[in-house]
Amino acid sequence: MARARRDTPGTAHVVHLNNAGAALPPSQVTDAVVAHLHREAEMGGYEAAAAAADLIEGTYGAIARLIGADPDEIALVENATRAWDMAFYALPFTRGDRILTARAEYASNVIALLQVAQRTGAVVEVVDDDEHGRFSVADLRRRLNRPGAGPVRLIAMTHVPTHGGLINPAAEVGAVARDAGVTYLLDACQSVGQLPIDVREIGCDLLSATGRKFLRGPRGTGFLYVRRDLVDRLVPPMLDLHSATLTGPSSFEIRPDARRFETWESNVAGRIGLGVAAEYAMSWGLDAIEARVRELAESLRVRLDAVDGVLVRDRGVPLCGIVTFTVDGVPSADVRRQLSSRGINTSMSPAAASQFDLTARAVPDVVRASVHYYNTEDELDRSVAALPPARRQR
Amino acid sequence: MARARRDTPGTAHVVHLNNAGAALPPSQVTDAVVAHLHREAEMGGYEAAAAAADLIEGTYGAIARLIGADPDEIALVENATRAWDMAFYALPFTRGDRILTARAEYASNVIALLQVAQRTGAVVEVVDDDEHGRFSVADLRRRLNRPGAGPVRLIAMTHVPTHGGLINPAAEVGAVARDAGVTYLLDACQSVGQLPIDVREIGCDLLSATGRKFLRGPRGTGFLYVRRDLVDRLVPPMLDLHSATLTGPSSFEIRPDARRFETWESNVAGRIGLGVAAEYAMSWGLDAIEARVRELAESLRVRLDAVDGVLVRDRGVPLCGIVTFTVDGVPSADVRRQLSSRGINTSMSPAAASQFDLTARAVPDVVRASVHYYNTEDELDRSVAALPPARRQR
Repeated sequence: MARARRDTPGTAHVVHLNNAGAALPPSQVTDAVVAHLHREAEMGGYEAAAAAADLIEGTYGAIARLIGADPDEIALVENATRAWDMAFYALPFTRGDRILTARAEYASNVIALLQVAQRTGAVVEVVDDDEHGRFSVADLRRRLNRPGAGPVRLIAMTHVPTHGGLINPAAEVGAVARDAGVTYLLDACQSVGQLPIDVREIGCDLLSATGRKFLRGPRGTGFLYVRRDLVDRLVPPMLDLHSATLTGPSSFEIRPDARRFETWESNVAGRIGLGVAAEYAMSWGLDAIEARVRELAESLRVRLDAVDGVLVRDRGVPLCGIVTFTVDGVPSADVRRQLSSRGINTSMSPAAASQFDLTARAVPDVVRASVHYYNTEDELDRSVAALPPARRQR
Repeated sequence: MARARRDTPGTAHVVHLNNAGAALPPSQVTDAVVAHLHREAEMGGYEAAAAAADLIEGTYGAIARLIGADPDEIALVENATRAWDMAFYALPFTRGDRILTARAEYASNVIALLQVAQRTGAVVEVVDDDEHGRFSVADLRRRLNRPGAGPVRLIAMTHVPTHGGLINPAAEVGAVARDAGVTYLLDACQSVGQLPIDVREIGCDLLSATGRKFLRGPRGTGFLYVRRDLVDRLVPPMLDLHSATLTGPSSFEIRPDARRFETWESNVAGRIGLGVAAEYAMSWGLDAIEARVRELAESLRVRLDAVDGVLVRDRGVPLCGIVTFTVDGVPSADVRRQLSSRGINTSMSPAAASQFDLTARAVPDVVRASVHYYNTEDELDRSVAALPPARRQR
């Protein structure tokens, strides 16, 4: 613990409970990024990349090990949204095709689903929650076997939704998807780095994630996993001279590995930092990280529950490191602002960004306090003590 | 000159003639990027972005001023390829539509044109060169007025091609495009930062560019200009919760400005550095930069012409800061390698990446030496002296 905090200069400045936004990076990550930026300034950008080729290549290996994939199944992209997009927009849909998604799906994904549905005539269906608020595997099965309905072409689910402690049953969904032969795209933006992830165990075909959240990598980094035997059936929605090669005046060939979803130019320093972040997480062990994060989050929920007028809003069994709550009579934006003025970083999840879930359940905007393993019980005490008092509703 | 070199730590380490790859950044840029990375490590990534909101917003203003646009017409993206893509893939094409492009078009753009042609049945036509090797405005006019041919929906031209000293007549093309009412997408990847650019004077509808080349900004940065009265007719090929907003369970609204082509998450530190790079370029003045760059490039061409067995390969009038050449009997890759071993950075432009131009003209791979204003005559002397001798062809 002392080492984790020593490695994390930000812990000396702030109580950081915004790890589901962007975590505090360890100095190992920042140093690696900064060192490469200096190499670029001293040698030139391309020359620095050539000199750091092993480091850059190492990021593919580190990410692959982190999620139980092979390096040729990994594409490095600039954020989780574009990782998810490059996979999703590569899928062919025609009128009447069905896309199944979750109530608690991420707003960016929902917008993309709706855009493609408008374009192609595919239909977006929202799978019910189970009694714990999770994606219902039973309802998924029912929808897959609905007589007379159009073919299900995709299951698109967020592993850990952004606005609560929920963990969706990724592996159970994977087993059903495999049985049904349906492509399964898992948004692991909030789970990579806080939970152990193994794409073979989960059984997903595609997985998208970011560097900056629980993985503690640089901003402007993300990655996409594409199962090897799927990759050559997916034509990226956009191509460049890295993802494809001109073979004649009017012909080109798309590369055979997951890097077909990349662009040539990238934030190279960030990619190096992403690899360092993955190695760093594995050096602690993802099981140990998960245990610590869940313990701290539970501890925070207990503290919040004990405060008069504070309502913990998380649903799910088990719960993860994202804790959401409201304070009676105080807008969540004001709660966040007051905490911030006392050096405590949290965020606010607006209900409007979660139409099928928060809005549908009439839950208002919530305060989101997301813990990481470098947080302490003392920080939780201070955070709860810094909350504004509930106001009687008039 | 002394100041330019003092501001550029790389000039103490290398002779950098790879400015068309990625230029050496001034320390002002590197320092701004590194300062923000440290803010992120100390405060948290989102909190640092909030604290630097003025700097980030300032980048839009700086880029807008650099190219004579307004800030709401600018989208910041991760590289010039994605800038170009977000515009190009947003354009609707149907069977028989014609897309006019240049012989010396950038390979990534050509691949994307071919992909969309395959998908939609649009036809890619390559406009002839004029007697100087430039995009022929006369041939463009002929093709626009060809009786019985399908409608021309797009002119996609690279301002300064990557593999030679050519400058295409951007403003003349703009005047013709406007008269014909045809959308005009200008790839200014190699011209922004070395030439003055004014989108109103050029008359382009869309312009894409990168940070890392002549603009001397960070890697992993780029921008797209979208003419204001075009923006709401262009539906981005991909959407997220930044480019659009959920307005109900199955409805969304795309934002009204050029930022509809962005993603929410980005390399924030890089964006700040991009703004600093633009301000820095404007502090020297783009006219002064152009004059110095063209003078140095011409000076290098004269030196190269004087070497037995060295052939300058640039075409065009006037010429820019990109100088290309071959050494008789020595593969260009070997020339580049030998220069590199002596601390001189150049690059190689493969003929295969330029099917309509180098390949069609039977020009082999060329060495590319691209100068910037911080280079010196002395560096040019040393570079030419370091060339391997020509070998007699057997």
